[in-house]
Amino acid sequence: MQKIKEHFDRNDRFARHCGVELVEIDKGRARARMQVKDLHFNGARTVHGGAIFTLADFAFAAASNSHGDLAMGISTCTSFVRAATEGVLYATAEEVSLSRKLATYQVRVTDQEDELIALFQGTVYRKSVPLTD
Amino acid sequence: MQKIKEHFDRNDRFARHCGVELVEIDKGRARARMQVKDLHFNGARTVHGGAIFTLADFAFAAASNSHGDLAMGISTCTSFVRAATEGVLYATAEEVSLSRKLATYQVRVTDQEDELIALFQGTVYRKSVPLTD
Amino acid sequence: MQKIKEHFDRNDRFARHCGVELVEIDKGRARARMQVKDLHFNGARTVHGGAIFTLADFAFAAASNSHGDLAMGISTCTSFVRAATEGVLYATAEEVSLSRKLATYQVRVTDQEDELIALFQGTVYRKSVPLTD
Amino acid sequence: MQKIKEHFDRNDRFARHCGVELVEIDKGRARARMQVKDLHFNGARTVHGGAIFTLADFAFAAASNSHGDLAMGISTCTSFVRAATEGVLYATAEEVSLSRKLATYQVRVTDQEDELIALFQGTVYRKSVPLTD
Repeated sequence: MQKIKEHFDRNDRFARHCGVELVEIDKGRARARMQVKDLHFNGARTVHGGAIFTLADFAFAAASNSHGDLAMGISTCTSFVRAATEGVLYATAEEVSLSRKLATYQVRVTDQEDELIALFQGTVYRKSVPLTD
Repeated sequence: MQKIKEHFDRNDRFARHCGVELVEIDKGRARARMQVKDLHFNGARTVHGGAIFTLADFAFAAASNSHGDLAMGISTCTSFVRAATEGVLYATAEEVSLSRKLATYQVRVTDQEDELIALFQGTVYRKSVPLTD
Repeated sequence: MQKIKEHFDRNDRFARHCGVELVEIDKGRARARMQVKDLHFNGARTVHGGAIFTLADFAFAAASNSHGDLAMGISTCTSFVRAATEGVLYATAEEVSLSRKLATYQVRVTDQEDELIALFQGTVYRKSVPLTD
Repeated sequence: MQKIKEHFDRNDRFARHCGVELVEIDKGRARARMQVKDLHFNGARTVHGGAIFTLADFAFAAASNSHGDLAMGISTCTSFVRAATEGVLYATAEEVSLSRKLATYQVRVTDQEDELIALFQGTVYRKSVPLTD
């Protein structure tokens, strides 16, 4: 699992560019965080939907690749329920279904008061190639 | 419309941070572009789902706010159909439905060969406040 | 709450036509059931996606209207994770967010062994009119 | 293609139970119709989301299985943009992406005036087994 965590820490450039970091990863589960900065704002000065999505998507990617085989997100859906403006946001991903070629995850994005910011669900297609060497 | 375009060019920091630019905007329509760079890659060296989403979401935001009143994305869904690795990506947003408080948009993300990279649909809630002063 | 339950028992014809029944309803929560019958099958002899959706959507409608004001589903997303073939299916809806005009719900569709059949999330627009007289 | 059409006409019991009929089917495309009747209504006397979904899902199933191999819907998302109350509803499905194991479709549900009732997109997983004998 350590090797998988390092893969995400080092190789996901867009996550790094957006200030998204992996906090924890386990079989079928992952948690990521993002410290809100000026660069995350949209024109209404709330955290951009794209930043929230990237945070959720990163936890989704980590959780779905946690089994060691490459998993690619094919379909996602996101409900944005509350504006975020400051502090740290967290994304917690949990596996709700796992089969040989497909898996589905639910991700909750929350703020420092544990208020729900967005609810995300996504499906991956699992390839028979390892994630890392 | 020029005032609305300037609002998006100047004030959406996250779009700028991700290299996403507004190309065109009209009533209920918008087009955005993103030149693929190293910073956009995920761990598999393809364009990150978060970058593709941000591009689509920016065109969605522009199209939905094109009528002048503030519109906030509440629900989106994205199918990632093809990996992108280089060149310029485009997102074209079209309004499929408009009512007093709600509107729905479809966004196609394509590459330089006009191949579909992702299909996105989203709904906004329209507030009775102007987008700009 | 009893009046709201009766409204759903009596007036939702399509739910009745599909054999979907409301089991429980409370503020922001609801549970529905569907006994699988021949009429529910698709061409592959598994429970049709439309039947699963209708079951989930009925629990979603009940939970979202449980506050007494009319709420209309505007956007939903469903991941079908496991085929269902027999027995009783349940849909359990829970509110994850509630504001003056919008609310979001998560619905889990499960079988008799509590295995997940589908994961659904949906958003409603809340009108300022009562559901019942 | 005729054999595939017959498969859907004969074997999809739930579609028949809901009054949904296949009008046309071609490679990657399909059209279905549903004459609105009393049985389709929800408690607000508009066509139930479950009926609209079933109509869209049936066109989606036909279009995705039109290549001859069994395709199963894994993920769908539906925006309900306009209430339907009478007449005939149509669902037109179009393939937007096709690969060896996955395919994505967009479905528009319209009424007799060609007004959009719902916008649906869905992804299937394609199995290496024929749909029919």
